[in-house]
Amino acid sequence: MVDLTGRPAGPRRAVAEAEVAVSQEALSAIIDGATPKGDVLAAAELAGVMAAKRAPELIPLCHPVALTDLLVRASPDRAAASVRIHAEAAAFASSGVEMEALTAAAIAALTVCDMVADRELAAAVRDLRLVSSSGGEMGEWRRADERPAEGRVPPGARAAGRVARGSHGPGPAGGKRRSP
Amino acid sequence: MVDLTGRPAGPRRAVAEAEVAVSQEALSAIIDGATPKGDVLAAAELAGVMAAKRAPELIPLCHPVALTDLLVRASPDRAAASVRIHAEAAAFASSGVEMEALTAAAIAALTVCDMVADRELAAAVRDLRLVSSSGGEMGEWRRADERPAEGRVPPGARAAGRVARGSHGPGPAGGKRRSP
Amino acid sequence: MVDLTGRPAGPRRAVAEAEVAVSQEALSAIIDGATPKGDVLAAAELAGVMAAKRAPELIPLCHPVALTDLLVRASPDRAAASVRIHAEAAAFASSGVEMEALTAAAIAALTVCDMVADRELAAAVRDLRLVSSSGGEMGEWRRADERPAEGRVPPGARAAGRVARGSHGPGPAGGKRRSP
Amino acid sequence: MVDLTGRPAGPRRAVAEAEVAVSQEALSAIIDGATPKGDVLAAAELAGVMAAKRAPELIPLCHPVALTDLLVRASPDRAAASVRIHAEAAAFASSGVEMEALTAAAIAALTVCDMVADRELAAAVRDLRLVSSSGGEMGEWRRADERPAEGRVPPGARAAGRVARGSHGPGPAGGKRRSP
Amino acid sequence: MVDLTGRPAGPRRAVAEAEVAVSQEALSAIIDGATPKGDVLAAAELAGVMAAKRAPELIPLCHPVALTDLLVRASPDRAAASVRIHAEAAAFASSGVEMEALTAAAIAALTVCDMVADRELAAAVRDLRLVSSSGGEMGEWRRADERPAEGRVPPGARAAGRVARGSHGPGPAGGKRRSP
Amino acid sequence: MVDLTGRPAGPRRAVAEAEVAVSQEALSAIIDGATPKGDVLAAAELAGVMAAKRAPELIPLCHPVALTDLLVRASPDRAAASVRIHAEAAAFASSGVEMEALTAAAIAALTVCDMVADRELAAAVRDLRLVSSSGGEMGEWRRADERPAEGRVPPGARAAGRVARGSHGPGPAGGKRRSP
Repeated sequence: MVDLTGRPAGPRRAVAEAEVAVSQEALSAIIDGATPKGDVLAAAELAGVMAAKRAPELIPLCHPVALTDLLVRASPDRAAASVRIHAEAAAFASSGVEMEALTAAAIAALTVCDMVADRELAAAVRDLRLVSSSGGEMGEWRRADERPAEGRVPPGARAAGRVARGSHGPGPAGGKRRSP
Repeated sequence: MVDLTGRPAGPRRAVAEAEVAVSQEALSAIIDGATPKGDVLAAAELAGVMAAKRAPELIPLCHPVALTDLLVRASPDRAAASVRIHAEAAAFASSGVEMEALTAAAIAALTVCDMVADRELAAAVRDLRLVSSSGGEMGEWRRADERPAEGRVPPGARAAGRVARGSHGPGPAGGKRRSP
Repeated sequence: MVDLTGRPAGPRRAVAEAEVAVSQEALSAIIDGATPKGDVLAAAELAGVMAAKRAPELIPLCHPVALTDLLVRASPDRAAASVRIHAEAAAFASSGVEMEALTAAAIAALTVCDMVADRELAAAVRDLRLVSSSGGEMGEWRRADERPAEGRVPPGARAAGRVARGSHGPGPAGGKRRSP
Repeated sequence: MVDLTGRPAGPRRAVAEAEVAVSQEALSAIIDGATPKGDVLAAAELAGVMAAKRAPELIPLCHPVALTDLLVRASPDRAAASVRIHAEAAAFASSGVEMEALTAAAIAALTVCDMVADRELAAAVRDLRLVSSSGGEMGEWRRADERPAEGRVPPGARAAGRVARGSHGPGPAGGKRRSP
Repeated sequence: MVDLTGRPAGPRRAVAEAEVAVSQEALSAIIDGATPKGDVLAAAELAGVMAAKRAPELIPLCHPVALTDLLVRASPDRAAASVRIHAEAAAFASSGVEMEALTAAAIAALTVCDMVADRELAAAVRDLRLVSSSGGEMGEWRRADERPAEGRVPPGARAAGRVARGSHGPGPAGGKRRSP
Repeated sequence: MVDLTGRPAGPRRAVAEAEVAVSQEALSAIIDGATPKGDVLAAAELAGVMAAKRAPELIPLCHPVALTDLLVRASPDRAAASVRIHAEAAAFASSGVEMEALTAAAIAALTVCDMVADRELAAAVRDLRLVSSSGGEMGEWRRADERPAEGRVPPGARAAGRVARGSHGPGPAGGKRRSP
């Protein structure tokens, strides 16, 4: 692992996203709660939260970090025939939390695939990626081709299935851009 | 979880794939072994193998299964500016091993992202998906738009970094198709 | 661990239950989904399922077993001011699955406590216990003072939050009793 | 998870307890070390300590925290025909350690059940509950109906089986009460 | 991992041993139960049993296997100024259980080191090794320079601290030797 | 666990080493990358790094600690017919990181055994031990009979297989000695 000895701790935050492409049929079942395995979105969100805490066990050279915030939202998107995963991680640490956010998004996405697997095996994860990252030597980073996160997951879109923080401010605002 | 009581065990096999889009620079560093964190492909392959064994801990309703085979290969693809992940899982079981193959591919892909993160945060996982699955009630399934697996990862393409089985026959042959 | 070498495998099933005593206020918040941390019952059910798969990691001398079924239900009970946890585990194995069912019930119950902890720390788990067990040398066992399981958790009582099997037959029927 | 960003860290401590109701026969075997699986109390104490460290893996929305103290004691109680579990957790953190103490008590209690399961399946966990908690915004909290912890587990009652700290001061003193 | 597909399952058993060199002072403290952290031998035995179940999580290419037997004994040896670790694993499987036995011995040995670390940091593990292995294509294997296991750990030497099986026959008998 | 409450955090570092005795044949296969399971040294190094992060899960009374550095090197030694394992752990913490370094060395060593097990079962771990430790009340400690660490693993000896930090200064310098 990269040696962090002597590197000061500071606030770190990262956002990752993914889309799970599913059929309109499967999407209907997800929205209606008509899948035999139960509430797909709640399961995906919880699985993502739990996986993020174990990112250092899964990613070989990822440093252990005590997460102070972890939020995963899974939202159906009719127009795109997909479930959108939004994962956000934060810590006060000397290493970043990018892998925690990405692991949360990855496992949340795979959980959606698992929950509809009786219906279709073709569900696929598109564009699992870091969207923004702040803190540390790298400063503020935002993916060049991303619209601001607020526009992507309308706040309050799905109240019932929320798994995490009761109220949270808007996502990480623009800040300075660094070309990727 | 789906109740498997009384369902007979049989040979199960699944193949998943993913592409990690990286810059040409990062790809050169990966190929040359010039990344500060060490051999990216070997780390990705090992991380994938280890994660597959823990899929039932990560995916909430995934059944525990004793894997008899697990092979992960990570291969650089210059033309596509990406690292291709190929993951294959097998077991003699009453449930499928699709989630094991997908988890292996996901964590191997994220490990590539982590190993180049000092250089670029923009690495992204494209098209994490099941490619084929065999065994069980569902029989043989192959993703409609996939070329046969053999053509994708040329055997012997990278000998040094292989992490798994010494010799293995060709991947799951075509068989009957089932539309996804 | 007890040596199971040479002991034949067979169908094993166990049911455990627990009650989490909460205030009427907290119970209202649970039922209305008005807790800041999200859907309490869905989280408890999922946490129970996931914990059961790790029972052999937690209970020192518990044998590893490949669960074929795991069902956890969390149901609010107004009259008793509690959340009832019902956990059921099954496997085809040479050891029992009692600890898996008990671990599922315990962690599901503690998850309820955690989800309402912002509101009250006094939530307590009452009577975490094995209700029935079948298979193996011990044969059929049922706790002496228990009414049949069917009467406890009315089927269909809570459709939306179900996390596990789509449809399942009645619980383990009475069978012969063995005094505990 | 609840967002702890910006919340100051401070000393946190929590105590949980549980009783495992067993037959007088099983209790004798526990006290005499005559159970086939070995020293029940030592195993229960160790299992509790180890489980507490994994509470954030088990309880979905529980924050990771670096425990600075973890003590589990299992004491036979002839009069009550039970084994009493006392678990205490501490950390310097921005979240509480209630779930760590409760998880320790729960798994210690289930380990007792497992260790006597060859003899009786009827062992049951009664009243798994938080007894006190200090630190954080909530300040000092103590369960209304509890006698002080010191009176419950007489110090020095069982020297041989102690698993944790060599010497420790008296348990969390009374402090101000807050009705639950 | 080596592909086990199609390889028949059968009874597998392996024995591993290690010695932990400690000072006579530390050994006295271990024997007298006078270490501040508690019963060293019981903790080592339990830690070894629990670690063996997780060998496939720790050793990258180790197959998951459902252990049917796991026995760890830690015995003080005055003459050699050491604690002897004896670990035995068994399963009905298509892969061996050598790594399970070795992992049990390794973690039991390190637990001894940890339990006396307040007193001395110089405790060291000598000769962590496989002693015998049976089952599978390799047949019976026994380390050339080992005396029979029975002579090493006198049965009944330490009754109180035993953690595993109530009664077990003599260790793996000689069988045919294969030079290593 | 030892109560660390109130003990100040500070820089902690520990180095552990082990030798794995293998045949000259197996050593040749390791050096040439001719083992069927792949790159032995890279796998051992990664497995050691990952295991160190889980030391508190494996060693019962080991405190959780957020490692800031973890470096494992596996180097073939022709003259000694062995693979040398060097593991180094660091953290800013109130407890030591000795067990993390030892666990890394132990699992790296066992991984070497596993990777050559198809060829020989006689591979054995010799002298798994702490070499030095610094920080905390104990101050600087170095094993009496050890030559300085720098002389043992020549820097740059194996560039390709390095798994961890890109550049790191010399190992922990001599400092004052404390007899073990």
